[in-house]
Amino acid sequence: MKSQNSENPSNTEPFSLKKKPFIETKERVRYSETDKMEVAHNKHYFEWFEIGRTEFCRKKGIPYKDIEKKGYYLMVAESFCKYKKPLKYDEEILIRVYLREATRKKITFHYEILSAAKKHIAAEGYTVHVATDKNAKVTTLPDDIFNKITHFLS
Amino acid sequence: MKSQNSENPSNTEPFSLKKKPFIETKERVRYSETDKMEVAHNKHYFEWFEIGRTEFCRKKGIPYKDIEKKGYYLMVAESFCKYKKPLKYDEEILIRVYLREATRKKITFHYEILSAAKKHIAAEGYTVHVATDKNAKVTTLPDDIFNKITHFLS
Amino acid sequence: MKSQNSENPSNTEPFSLKKKPFIETKERVRYSETDKMEVAHNKHYFEWFEIGRTEFCRKKGIPYKDIEKKGYYLMVAESFCKYKKPLKYDEEILIRVYLREATRKKITFHYEILSAAKKHIAAEGYTVHVATDKNAKVTTLPDDIFNKITHFLS
Amino acid sequence: MKSQNSENPSNTEPFSLKKKPFIETKERVRYSETDKMEVAHNKHYFEWFEIGRTEFCRKKGIPYKDIEKKGYYLMVAESFCKYKKPLKYDEEILIRVYLREATRKKITFHYEILSAAKKHIAAEGYTVHVATDKNAKVTTLPDDIFNKITHFLS
Repeated sequence: MKSQNSENPSNTEPFSLKKKPFIETKERVRYSETDKMEVAHNKHYFEWFEIGRTEFCRKKGIPYKDIEKKGYYLMVAESFCKYKKPLKYDEEILIRVYLREATRKKITFHYEILSAAKKHIAAEGYTVHVATDKNAKVTTLPDDIFNKITHFLS
Repeated sequence: MKSQNSENPSNTEPFSLKKKPFIETKERVRYSETDKMEVAHNKHYFEWFEIGRTEFCRKKGIPYKDIEKKGYYLMVAESFCKYKKPLKYDEEILIRVYLREATRKKITFHYEILSAAKKHIAAEGYTVHVATDKNAKVTTLPDDIFNKITHFLS
Repeated sequence: MKSQNSENPSNTEPFSLKKKPFIETKERVRYSETDKMEVAHNKHYFEWFEIGRTEFCRKKGIPYKDIEKKGYYLMVAESFCKYKKPLKYDEEILIRVYLREATRKKITFHYEILSAAKKHIAAEGYTVHVATDKNAKVTTLPDDIFNKITHFLS
Repeated sequence: MKSQNSENPSNTEPFSLKKKPFIETKERVRYSETDKMEVAHNKHYFEWFEIGRTEFCRKKGIPYKDIEKKGYYLMVAESFCKYKKPLKYDEEILIRVYLREATRKKITFHYEILSAAKKHIAAEGYTVHVATDKNAKVTTLPDDIFNKITHFLS
């Protein structure tokens, strides 16, 4: 994840948060999310990232479904996850979403998945999103959406 | 599944196949489809039923995506599965789809999931579909779609 | 669902609840749970049923993971869902679980999925479970588990 | 994916394939794998990677289920996907798996997802795996497994 440089943000970056506020959502590992290793399967972390994003947008005052109703889509262009500690069935998890970088064309979110009971980071990752219209054509986010997503939490 | 009466089909039924031709599709149990019991999770059987329907429509000469392109949807109104023998990771399965009953408004498929190696029936079930438009409004299938779906296999 | 007869329960049934208490769990439709019809896909209702069962067991004082730790499994033998109204992305749903019938060998749960905002029943269904050991061999639930699951809510 | 340098492999890497043979598996996008954007949801690419790995191991003469039977697990430590072109329902895809680096403790696979009809690369990515025992404790792969996985295809 070389593009992040959170310690020493590049001035040339179009947008960069100095502080790292996050939106936190609580979930539980579903039985159907386990696999024969008896831990949560790797693909479900990307669903949890997505649930976190949904709550991030809602908390910022612009529910993601409203973004789509206005004709804008944040298509996933890249996704990455690093798995640190396995998660078990019925374990409570905290999904933390950080806005890492944002322009009107491209947004990067960073995530941490924590075991709620054990307090350790079970996984972390990021997703890169490109603003598109319904037909997956690249576009530019209008001010009202962009400003809400990037608004620093008070 | 009392509505089937395959041994003694009711004359009052709008459409009823005397013989039972089926369309068979081969799949394998994915790792991600297992759960902590180390067998395929119950929800995936409904995905297998759906894969079977996709191949059923294709073999009948009317790929399901073409039905949707024409503006018709076969919305799932009911689904049922009876699980008989668990299925393991990487096990080859046969999905058999039978057309059970069909009118221009409602279609019922019956399914068998077989272990390809062991030849036994691992599960069976059915789905009931209602013909709708894109907005989930009930409609009537046109002749070209209906005739192809219900055409007896030669 | 002929086996239910909730209006007029058969006296021959080994266990039958006269009243219908339910355990309710709130969820939201995930983006990943929608399909190209823009509504929740039929297979996810069975995951919601399962989430409801997990909370049912927890509220009854016997978390499902503890049942498995004791060496007992409630294997799904049958599952059924009737879909009434489609559910959209981000819609809040209520999952209601009712214990319908229970013996030490077999348990039937009934479910309702409600749209939290619109208050209508979006779907309902049932699952039948057989008590087994880890190797899927049929067994009999011990008193401590059986009594907690079937204990009438105060 | 800076660590790859496939053009000019570093001599310090413990194992590095000069040529890039791949194992190819054909799949179709399932209806249940689409989302409300009417394209395959981002999480399913990681399932396709996994299907590709299953076939990779089988073709190399050591089915993944046999690796697990011997008590070894290739736990996913990292996963990454870059999405280039959306994939539609019922589209045929080719999953190509390349072995990128391998030691007895860690294996990296690289993947390409191609649209079978259009011949373009729809997505690419990688997964990093750590050899563990059933309890997720890090271990070292024995010769028979390691040699088969890393054997250059004839």
